[in-house]
Amino acid sequence: MTHDCSFLEDLDLADDQLSFAEGRRETHAADWGAQQDGRGVLPDAVVWPETTKDVSTVLAAATDHGVPVTPYAAGTGLEGNAVPAQGGISMDLTRMDDVVDYRPDDFQIDVGPGIIGSAVDEYVADDGLFFPPLPSSGDISTIGGMIATDASGMQTVKYGEVADWVLGLEAVLADGTVVRTGSRAIKTSSGYNLTELLVGSEGTLAVVTEATLRLAGRPQQIRGGRAIFETLDDATAAVFDAVRTDVDVARIELVDGLSARMANEYLDSGLPDAPMVFLEFHANHGVEEEIELCRTIFEDHDVARFEMSDDDAEMESLWQARRELAYAVQSYDPDLQPLHPGDVTVPISAYPEIVHEAKRLEEEYGLLVPCFGHAGDGNLHYSVLVDPDDPEQLERGEALYKEIVERAMAIGGTSTGEHGIGQGKREYLEAEHGAGAVDAMRRVKRALDPTGTLNPGKIFPDEEC
Amino acid sequence: MTHDCSFLEDLDLADDQLSFAEGRRETHAADWGAQQDGRGVLPDAVVWPETTKDVSTVLAAATDHGVPVTPYAAGTGLEGNAVPAQGGISMDLTRMDDVVDYRPDDFQIDVGPGIIGSAVDEYVADDGLFFPPLPSSGDISTIGGMIATDASGMQTVKYGEVADWVLGLEAVLADGTVVRTGSRAIKTSSGYNLTELLVGSEGTLAVVTEATLRLAGRPQQIRGGRAIFETLDDATAAVFDAVRTDVDVARIELVDGLSARMANEYLDSGLPDAPMVFLEFHANHGVEEEIELCRTIFEDHDVARFEMSDDDAEMESLWQARRELAYAVQSYDPDLQPLHPGDVTVPISAYPEIVHEAKRLEEEYGLLVPCFGHAGDGNLHYSVLVDPDDPEQLERGEALYKEIVERAMAIGGTSTGEHGIGQGKREYLEAEHGAGAVDAMRRVKRALDPTGTLNPGKIFPDEEC
Repeated sequence: MTHDCSFLEDLDLADDQLSFAEGRRETHAADWGAQQDGRGVLPDAVVWPETTKDVSTVLAAATDHGVPVTPYAAGTGLEGNAVPAQGGISMDLTRMDDVVDYRPDDFQIDVGPGIIGSAVDEYVADDGLFFPPLPSSGDISTIGGMIATDASGMQTVKYGEVADWVLGLEAVLADGTVVRTGSRAIKTSSGYNLTELLVGSEGTLAVVTEATLRLAGRPQQIRGGRAIFETLDDATAAVFDAVRTDVDVARIELVDGLSARMANEYLDSGLPDAPMVFLEFHANHGVEEEIELCRTIFEDHDVARFEMSDDDAEMESLWQARRELAYAVQSYDPDLQPLHPGDVTVPISAYPEIVHEAKRLEEEYGLLVPCFGHAGDGNLHYSVLVDPDDPEQLERGEALYKEIVERAMAIGGTSTGEHGIGQGKREYLEAEHGAGAVDAMRRVKRALDPTGTLNPGKIFPDEEC
Repeated sequence: MTHDCSFLEDLDLADDQLSFAEGRRETHAADWGAQQDGRGVLPDAVVWPETTKDVSTVLAAATDHGVPVTPYAAGTGLEGNAVPAQGGISMDLTRMDDVVDYRPDDFQIDVGPGIIGSAVDEYVADDGLFFPPLPSSGDISTIGGMIATDASGMQTVKYGEVADWVLGLEAVLADGTVVRTGSRAIKTSSGYNLTELLVGSEGTLAVVTEATLRLAGRPQQIRGGRAIFETLDDATAAVFDAVRTDVDVARIELVDGLSARMANEYLDSGLPDAPMVFLEFHANHGVEEEIELCRTIFEDHDVARFEMSDDDAEMESLWQARRELAYAVQSYDPDLQPLHPGDVTVPISAYPEIVHEAKRLEEEYGLLVPCFGHAGDGNLHYSVLVDPDDPEQLERGEALYKEIVERAMAIGGTSTGEHGIGQGKREYLEAEHGAGAVDAMRRVKRALDPTGTLNPGKIFPDEEC
């Protein structure tokens, strides 16, 4: 699909804010997931707005000309969320990366969508504050992207997801209208919650141009470490038991035996190729008591090793296998590539079952499926490794991948806990929410973007939404 | 406005599920606020659905017949939210009060909208769980009503508002379509967040027929008490200082000197008629350290008395002035009545200013304005006391009331922190959110309720939305 975007040259944009060059278009046709899936479609043009007015001008003109606009930033999405499905304009928001206002006494900061997550943390660190829900890619991904997918990550088990930390937004609708949502008051019950409607809407309803984020006080006590189990069922049962006992844990990450083997080989760690649980505890009081409570619960599930530390370097070392896991999986066998990254998330009581099921299917299908995830949230990332040159194996991999998503939904979970629907999970939308809810979503989409300008071909299963 | 509701007799409802009797219609034409404001309009009929199917049947038929439907439950709203503005059907949801499912291991419970808030707490107490965001009226108000207004209360400073504790909903749209929103997974980024769109929408988008609530573990350490200050500015500065220092407090309630005088007279307490701050601390570890931190901060602001206890009866006694405050204000002078209850909420840094301003205006207008509120959230309830038979005083009271709302919005706050817009705060909607955001809200309203069946005359400033 090709769109004539020459009208962009008539807008009030500087030369370096607009490009039709193939090289620039190509870099905006991929994300971390799409690179693996080949889902990218070249945009016809790339624009780099620098102000809310730029965003508004481009959107209004694009809507007038019937040209799709797909917001883009760091390109770290996993489901093709920011990759144009129908060409048109890629709107790159990385230049809108200012700290617009900072109110430490209110634990609030206003930022542009293009600011990198970790830059927010650095900006507020001297005041003892931080932005808790950063995903693992927080030092590369932008706040705008995190808002688009309602991202979350390792610390969500204690602090919640991005949606819980966005107080208000400035955003531009497809017709160029600028809206402000939310309040600087910590709570409001005035009007519809447009903030939460836009968070997680993947740029299909509006383009976020500024966000008011809440911040948290940095905990005075941080301890971290690793537990190693004999069996994966022990590990998942221990995680479930710790969470239902309300252990105050800030991170609780699962790595299955296969992933551990990959990490151990990659790092030459000398550790057993056994299921591991990585932990971090944050508190102002009583962190040792929480660790001891967790240790007791893990011992009930035959934990083989339970090592914690309060020393930064030592914690880093204990966590190394988890930190390097993505690279370890990628480099494990050069002939194999992971099919579709992304995640499923289930109620914590169903976590042992979904992990067990993933490994059972791994055996049934005769493929390698390294499993890991933010276990405390019931989150599971699983990579199905296949030889991309083997069509039969690809097909088998797809079937396995799908069975796990469907199983997760069947036991009360979601097809995507933290990466959005994008292009990759569209086929599950209706199965997860039912026809009534999907129709309500469509009605909202049509109400706010009647021309279908914004990020078409995402979220909804049919091509045009 | 009168609507012919005789079609209800043809629906599949039992005799005791439908009434046209004036007595029943009258009890459904008032709430706690409307009784004082005279905002109530008689519905033409009252229905008591007992199942989701009943709700769907009545809504579909009402939409077919062009008759408005206003959801109703405990009638404890303050802004006329559940009081019909245009007659039609009052849909009383109090019979749908079942616990549908309870999953203590997942900290989740599914309930009907008519269940009383405290009944949820009682149901889950044996498992050491509770529903943290209950408002002060939690032993009278229903979960459905709390969801409709995104209610919050004393514990919001630590635990957040109702929206933070709703994982998913079953709801019926105006055309009778049943939708399910959200997930049992603790997080999801699948599709639009219809849950948060419906929470706080005051029954104007859909009627909630079931809610999946999150629960929290009951804290092992609870301490409570009272601080008494020399001046109100000291008290509000102390609250601000405690909150910005991140003191882990679960309740922090302000009562100004005038309110204290009313409570002291009512209770014959022997306490000074001085500003008071009521505190409660919840923790599993280190509660005494947090209390000492708070005491130190309060001493910096010349606190006169700081009394805490871990004994239930003693805590109850220290809190008595706060608990009886509403009755004390009401009975202070039989010739005076409070104008418009409800609240404003501001960023915590602006709390000293809004409270100071309220008292300055009290003096300027020569009226009594007792002030209190969930201070830790920046929340202020203020009653303007007037002689209802004195038109000049009424007018003066209205002007004062309005000045405080406008001042709160001017310093970054909201016209309504926890009671919704209803009928009482409609005139402030656009000033607070801007024309763009209000238009976006209207588009959402029209998309989900194109016939304007659901609770017309609420939220939006014009008669018909």
